Amino acid sequence: MIKVTVWNEFRHEKKDEEVIAVYPDGIHKCIAGFLENEKGISVKTATLDEPEHGLTGEVLENTDVLIWWGHMCHAEVSDEIAEKVYNRVLRGMGFIALHSAHFAKPFIKLMGTSCSLKWREGDFERLWVISPNHPIAEGIGEYVELENEEMYGERFDIPAPDEQVFISWFKGGEVFRSGCCWNRGLGKVFYFRPGHETNPSYHVPQIQRIITNAVKWAAPNQIIDEILCPNAKPSPEEKRA
Amino acid sequence: MIKVTVWNEFRHEKKDEEVIAVYPDGIHKCIAGFLENEKGISVKTATLDEPEHGLTGEVLENTDVLIWWGHMCHAEVSDEIAEKVYNRVLRGMGFIALHSAHFAKPFIKLMGTSCSLKWREGDFERLWVISPNHPIAEGIGEYVELENEEMYGERFDIPAPDEQVFISWFKGGEVFRSGCCWNRGLGKVFYFRPGHETNPSYHVPQIQRIITNAVKWAAPNQIIDEILCPNAKPSPEEKRA
Amino acid sequence: MIKVTVWNEFRHEKKDEEVIAVYPDGIHKCIAGFLENEKGISVKTATLDEPEHGLTGEVLENTDVLIWWGHMCHAEVSDEIAEKVYNRVLRGMGFIALHSAHFAKPFIKLMGTSCSLKWREGDFERLWVISPNHPIAEGIGEYVELENEEMYGERFDIPAPDEQVFISWFKGGEVFRSGCCWNRGLGKVFYFRPGHETNPSYHVPQIQRIITNAVKWAAPNQIIDEILCPNAKPSPEEKRA
Amino acid sequence: MIKVTVWNEFRHEKKDEEVIAVYPDGIHKCIAGFLENEKGISVKTATLDEPEHGLTGEVLENTDVLIWWGHMCHAEVSDEIAEKVYNRVLRGMGFIALHSAHFAKPFIKLMGTSCSLKWREGDFERLWVISPNHPIAEGIGEYVELENEEMYGERFDIPAPDEQVFISWFKGGEVFRSGCCWNRGLGKVFYFRPGHETNPSYHVPQIQRIITNAVKWAAPNQIIDEILCPNAKPSPEEKRA
Repeated sequence: MIKVTVWNEFRHEKKDEEVIAVYPDGIHKCIAGFLENEKGISVKTATLDEPEHGLTGEVLENTDVLIWWGHMCHAEVSDEIAEKVYNRVLRGMGFIALHSAHFAKPFIKLMGTSCSLKWREGDFERLWVISPNHPIAEGIGEYVELENEEMYGERFDIPAPDEQVFISWFKGGEVFRSGCCWNRGLGKVFYFRPGHETNPSYHVPQIQRIITNAVKWAAPNQIIDEILCPNAKPSPEEKRA
Repeated sequence: MIKVTVWNEFRHEKKDEEVIAVYPDGIHKCIAGFLENEKGISVKTATLDEPEHGLTGEVLENTDVLIWWGHMCHAEVSDEIAEKVYNRVLRGMGFIALHSAHFAKPFIKLMGTSCSLKWREGDFERLWVISPNHPIAEGIGEYVELENEEMYGERFDIPAPDEQVFISWFKGGEVFRSGCCWNRGLGKVFYFRPGHETNPSYHVPQIQRIITNAVKWAAPNQIIDEILCPNAKPSPEEKRA
Repeated sequence: MIKVTVWNEFRHEKKDEEVIAVYPDGIHKCIAGFLENEKGISVKTATLDEPEHGLTGEVLENTDVLIWWGHMCHAEVSDEIAEKVYNRVLRGMGFIALHSAHFAKPFIKLMGTSCSLKWREGDFERLWVISPNHPIAEGIGEYVELENEEMYGERFDIPAPDEQVFISWFKGGEVFRSGCCWNRGLGKVFYFRPGHETNPSYHVPQIQRIITNAVKWAAPNQIIDEILCPNAKPSPEEKRA
Repeated sequence: MIKVTVWNEFRHEKKDEEVIAVYPDGIHKCIAGFLENEKGISVKTATLDEPEHGLTGEVLENTDVLIWWGHMCHAEVSDEIAEKVYNRVLRGMGFIALHSAHFAKPFIKLMGTSCSLKWREGDFERLWVISPNHPIAEGIGEYVELENEEMYGERFDIPAPDEQVFISWFKGGEVFRSGCCWNRGLGKVFYFRPGHETNPSYHVPQIQRIITNAVKWAAPNQIIDEILCPNAKPSPEEKRA
């Protein structure tokens, strides 16, 4: 059983009518909803305004894969919680950063770059599959089309991905590395571009399939308690001479 | 002095009026022309219909970087010459494959994949710079626009590039990894997408700058005579125990 | 069910007493033996001296993952069969090249390099796990030790691996990238270093675990019938303007 | 002219006789010394105990490549200065982390991992060249041997390097990715393993050559003033429809 926690800033959905119309229970509930239908996955949610942002030590220690959606309030996430998330990724937890989470504290900390990009609301997006044999692209076909999304354009200031799964085309003239995999410590990290709060992308079956695939890909084979930097003895003499 | 040989199939330019209008002396002469203006580069040309396709042992042994343009007649390139080119790349020679050379024998041999793609004549292309600190992108700015080019679209069946310099946007809805670097043996390989025979892309200053940058990047620090697979003695005992 | 074919040159084991003592039924039978014990894997074998080297069209079309061991007789493998294997990898089949298969025709064709290296019989090898979160390293711990193996040393002339799972240490003073992953077309390729014919490495439980893990990792999510290079229509007008 | 600043913790060399014997003027002066002999490079030094650790805004803004040696006192480097260094790397400055700088604040921040490893004082090291065509390996031959060095062993918890230049062999049984390149933002980052304070590695001509090569490789083609995340207008209509 893969234990997933879906974290959401959950502010837009409390006050912005346009967003409430699309995600009445919050983006986290929408994502948790389709993941719960999947065999082998159990799901919880956590949000910014809960104590410790809903990410207590106990919650984190019971999370195999953390999904993160944030936008306006990255700065309100405490450095301490961001550090705990970061540390758990290095120890093995999977981490899936969605859309504007490119600027989330734990994501930037894992990347070591500014993660800046170009942006514009309201465009047509086509996500092309670049690595059709990648587990995250399984069952997707050649591309996904989203009629209305926020544009994110290159240059996206990230480290070269270990694996490039999707590259997006936008009507307005931009391209974007929209599905990127990295290893950090023992953890697997996936950045997935779509999901502006006023667009119903997380209701699209192909997008749901990609996020579900990503959860399975990011699930750890081990999460260790501590990262050590040990003084090591040499190999026994008889193995060397 | 970097010794460059520009190889061209040189068939379109002998019989197709539309191509002759754009490249009256052949694509190779156009490319050789702007490279010759560059300090530190000396240029020769070679074409398919010359003996040994112009790539005699002597020519190859005096080539640091080989630029290759081919389209209709890949199959007419002899396996022996393709093998010689391939072998010299592994020994250190730089290799720049232009446009439809994605299907050239030496390129496919270096890649180990089919190098297939989608295509369509007549589109608008914008090449976005993905790696602005790469030597091949020096002086290019954010992107290059080409008013009229053949479209090449993903999925491009290549090994994941060691470095991704450009990704193209096409008006018709496609993206393409249009500037890709690989190391093969001691040689550096660059694939660069633009250059359909009926479009004047090699007359565009930014494109000329990119090809010139690529020549400098691909220039070898050594070309060896032979690739060995030696039986090796162990390190002396005193260094081990 | 993952359909595995284990291919072996199977010449050493017919005439060399020292090899027969280690692999009385051939290396292929040893490998098939431990794979057969694994749930979800079905195994066949094929050898050089069978008609079409045991790799008829029917056999290949029923193979999800091909394991290859060859040494003395790479040149006796027909170009036609090598080409068929290569082509099926690009269409999705997994390919695991063992030990001296670094010089096997299909492997060299997939790499696009010489695959040369240094070598010496009789050494102590320790394979360090570099990517502990990789599925191929699952359950292996920090390293594997092999008391007696042929040494393979750098520089190994391969393209930079997409994923580096193991790096070996040899008593005599060498290092080697001994577990390397690449994607080629839709196929996954794994090179794994150990397995000299006079050393019992394929009897070692950790080595068996690694090869079993590699089979699962290399199993395709799809194998296509044909690789196309299609002329593509532009996206409909209403999605672009 | 490449403007290099060599930063050193410079504490060992003030109090430890064994270190003073090897680097009487400090490690920074030794490195600055051999770099100053190189045409096209100008060198300054900076140390921990200077105001702002010698890395004032003016110094940083006049540094193209920053070399960093630190060991005992990583925690004494102020977060503010570490952040300024990190930010300037993203804007284009080259960064070379030496030996125990694997734990330096700016390096960890650029990597996004723990950078932990195994260690042991007193071993024989052989650094094998893995990428002989890389500019940093130019003129080095097959390997470098260091009679006495601190051992650093895998697993080294770093992101997969963009380019792997060296892998080390240690007598005691370990391997280590000892020369690693990454791009971060517009900056180039090189980690180079040797250089324990009691061992004379920076006096070794091959090591000096490698560091000199690395300075040239890491020199930026541009350093920008600010990293933006701009709202972007769509491409003009006539380029799209």
